[in-house]
Amino acid sequence: MPGNGKRRDQTMQKKNYVQEILEIIHSGLPQAELAEKLSDYHENDLADALTVLTPEERQKVYTALGVDTVAEIFSYLDDAEPYLKELDPERAARVISHMDSDDAVDALDDLEEDDKAKIVHQLDKDAADDVKLLLSYNEDEIGSCMTTNYICIRRDMTIRQAMSELVKQAGENDNISTLYVVDENEHFYGAIDLKDLIVARAEERLEKLIARSYPYVTDHEKISDCIDRIVDYAERSLPVLNDSGKLLGIITSADVVELVDDEMGDDYAKLGGLTSEEDLNEGVFQSVKKRLPWLIALLFLGMLVSSVVGAFESVVAVLPIVICFQSMVLDMAGNVGTQSLAVTIRVLVDENLTTAKKLQLLWKEMRVGLTNGALLAVLALGFLGCYIHFFKAYAWGEAFLLSGCVGVSLVVAMVISSLVGTVIPMLFHKIHIDPAVASGPLITTINDLVAVVVYYGLAAVVLIDMFHLG
Amino acid sequence: MPGNGKRRDQTMQKKNYVQEILEIIHSGLPQAELAEKLSDYHENDLADALTVLTPEERQKVYTALGVDTVAEIFSYLDDAEPYLKELDPERAARVISHMDSDDAVDALDDLEEDDKAKIVHQLDKDAADDVKLLLSYNEDEIGSCMTTNYICIRRDMTIRQAMSELVKQAGENDNISTLYVVDENEHFYGAIDLKDLIVARAEERLEKLIARSYPYVTDHEKISDCIDRIVDYAERSLPVLNDSGKLLGIITSADVVELVDDEMGDDYAKLGGLTSEEDLNEGVFQSVKKRLPWLIALLFLGMLVSSVVGAFESVVAVLPIVICFQSMVLDMAGNVGTQSLAVTIRVLVDENLTTAKKLQLLWKEMRVGLTNGALLAVLALGFLGCYIHFFKAYAWGEAFLLSGCVGVSLVVAMVISSLVGTVIPMLFHKIHIDPAVASGPLITTINDLVAVVVYYGLAAVVLIDMFHLG
Repeated sequence: MPGNGKRRDQTMQKKNYVQEILEIIHSGLPQAELAEKLSDYHENDLADALTVLTPEERQKVYTALGVDTVAEIFSYLDDAEPYLKELDPERAARVISHMDSDDAVDALDDLEEDDKAKIVHQLDKDAADDVKLLLSYNEDEIGSCMTTNYICIRRDMTIRQAMSELVKQAGENDNISTLYVVDENEHFYGAIDLKDLIVARAEERLEKLIARSYPYVTDHEKISDCIDRIVDYAERSLPVLNDSGKLLGIITSADVVELVDDEMGDDYAKLGGLTSEEDLNEGVFQSVKKRLPWLIALLFLGMLVSSVVGAFESVVAVLPIVICFQSMVLDMAGNVGTQSLAVTIRVLVDENLTTAKKLQLLWKEMRVGLTNGALLAVLALGFLGCYIHFFKAYAWGEAFLLSGCVGVSLVVAMVISSLVGTVIPMLFHKIHIDPAVASGPLITTINDLVAVVVYYGLAAVVLIDMFHLG
Repeated sequence: MPGNGKRRDQTMQKKNYVQEILEIIHSGLPQAELAEKLSDYHENDLADALTVLTPEERQKVYTALGVDTVAEIFSYLDDAEPYLKELDPERAARVISHMDSDDAVDALDDLEEDDKAKIVHQLDKDAADDVKLLLSYNEDEIGSCMTTNYICIRRDMTIRQAMSELVKQAGENDNISTLYVVDENEHFYGAIDLKDLIVARAEERLEKLIARSYPYVTDHEKISDCIDRIVDYAERSLPVLNDSGKLLGIITSADVVELVDDEMGDDYAKLGGLTSEEDLNEGVFQSVKKRLPWLIALLFLGMLVSSVVGAFESVVAVLPIVICFQSMVLDMAGNVGTQSLAVTIRVLVDENLTTAKKLQLLWKEMRVGLTNGALLAVLALGFLGCYIHFFKAYAWGEAFLLSGCVGVSLVVAMVISSLVGTVIPMLFHKIHIDPAVASGPLITTINDLVAVVVYYGLAAVVLIDMFHLG
């Protein structure tokens, strides 16, 4: 509750509401009073409370609250399966029918096939059509996450008619902040901001309120292609049209939050070397499956690097000290490559780059790589020179020759790594392979190879051939 | 426009609207007609058009559209500075006053100090108070991104009064889907879903519509602490209260999208070894600054690894072939560690983990590491054995002793890396250091150290001491 001091953290506060709900349910109130009291709470908190009740208590709550509220509560459950299974199929179908179409599909997806079939069979025609429509899209298409829960009015209505149509439809559809206007063929005509309708005078023409050139997305667009545009409009909802301009559904801001979270979560996971995002409750086997592909790819690419290192065995045999700094040169090249990769991926996701912009990014990454490389090289030169002189008992000249070789390798490897880390994702993006997945292993390998060849090559030519160290 | 075939991609479509807007502006229509036509377009598209107009054309647009629409358009600009500077301070102040408070603060932040001061000086008292309030919060506090643009009604109103209050306030405040109810002391009392108010009959009691236990956040909460809770409620807006329960502002769903995007973008950047997210237009110097800290840390930690590798110089001198596989063992350990890190960071961000859950995660990561390690070890054993036999001319027995040594090192290094990649971020999280920043370098170093010691140690003991290879 507000007002009890500063030390309310997330768990405490949430627990409070959930705790209160539980106390109300346990208090054995008559149904009407129970419903009245629970209506003060948010469906998300009610959903949290639901998960800790006994099945009998849940039945009591379902009966008290009615199907509409239960549907909303179910939309907030992470996994609706166990709760849907507690309802008989007919009642479950009614709950599903009252959910937003995208939530309904999510909930049905949680079920096993035959449970799902039983419920779908019982859905009323409208809900069944909606579910069928949404299931007809691929998971990566925007149509798969729209809802048909919106207010739709005809363009030839008066303001008064529109207002009463709103009141009529608001009972069933709660995304009311934007009203969608269609023409006689159900084609999208424009949108009205509810605020404008509310402050309009009854004698005004509805047409004047309609924003004709309203932003929209089309149902088969890839989510990753349009998510950024959707975010840019920062609207409470955007219409989803088919190719001929018919209004099919809307994307709400809550959907957008979810989509942004998913998209970025996946990008994040991919940068971390997972094929897709993992969550806490996943089994070991599933986790292994998500992580193994990259590891196997890297193992074989690593063998390639090994065979190249193998070519320099003679250098190492003569001058074993050079191996000390191999890991450092390779690590730095790898880190710089990852930095460039991370920057490039976000830029590719966020913007539609022209060739000029790409070249500009490349040029910038190169300069960043050079600057960082030069700074680190100077540091390495100084510190390693001293280290080699004092701890490895080399003369000052030889020590600085060795550390100079590391320094030069660092600069060269870091500049090339920056370029590789920028070019590779761009190339994958160009040929429509997800750069976030494919780039990592390739960049690591190329950078390792470059670093190994530069470092040992330099050691062989400069240290051994020219200065006869070892 | 809808209906012109499937090949409408993002740029094309956006260009269309922006192109249309430009044509309208260039057509030299009289002001009233211009305003009428432009009102059909979304402010985001108008903002895009604005950026390609000449200053004179922009002045024409500003005059035609009026300060309210201009304020909305300015909210959509990435950088409002050049456009605000084109207005005289008095007019700029009026535009700023009409913006949502958080957008207003963002726009003012784009300006240089003396321009800002001039405008702030001209703000009306309400807007000035709002701006001052928002600026009083740290950037990472939720109060800094709220808006005071919301509908607020008193609990003792009738439904009819509430409705006319809504109509009155809707002109100035366009976040109308939730009405916020306060008591006589302006303390937050509850929220009303606009939908419920619209379908309610005039004789009902307002009290019945109010959700009393409505979710809220407090102004000084850290964004990273409450963003997940806010997302969970999936509301169009949530109230922001101060510690005594006074209603200060709201967080809209558009704010939430932005916050989620920022939070995840930062996490992403940190996993990539940047101190914070970079964007395309940043200069080389700024990029260097964001990337150098981690690189320097890694350089010095790398020196530590180097000195440990140095301890095994004698092994390498006797058996130079072992260096071939060093990079592979270290890379694999690094990759596994990064995977565990990526998973752990997301889990730490998303959930409030109990100790039991943490141990469970740790146990799972260990088993995943062991499974992946065992699988990869078998692959490495087979392939490397053959490689060493055929390309390095070792006898079969010796070849498999060598590859066996790599295999065992892989298993051990991968299990330990999984653990390190899980435990380190948990520890940092515990002591309230951002695990996304601090974990990377430390995990890399520890894993490198472990891998080096295990691999060369094994080579020294098994290959050289026991089997006298080399």
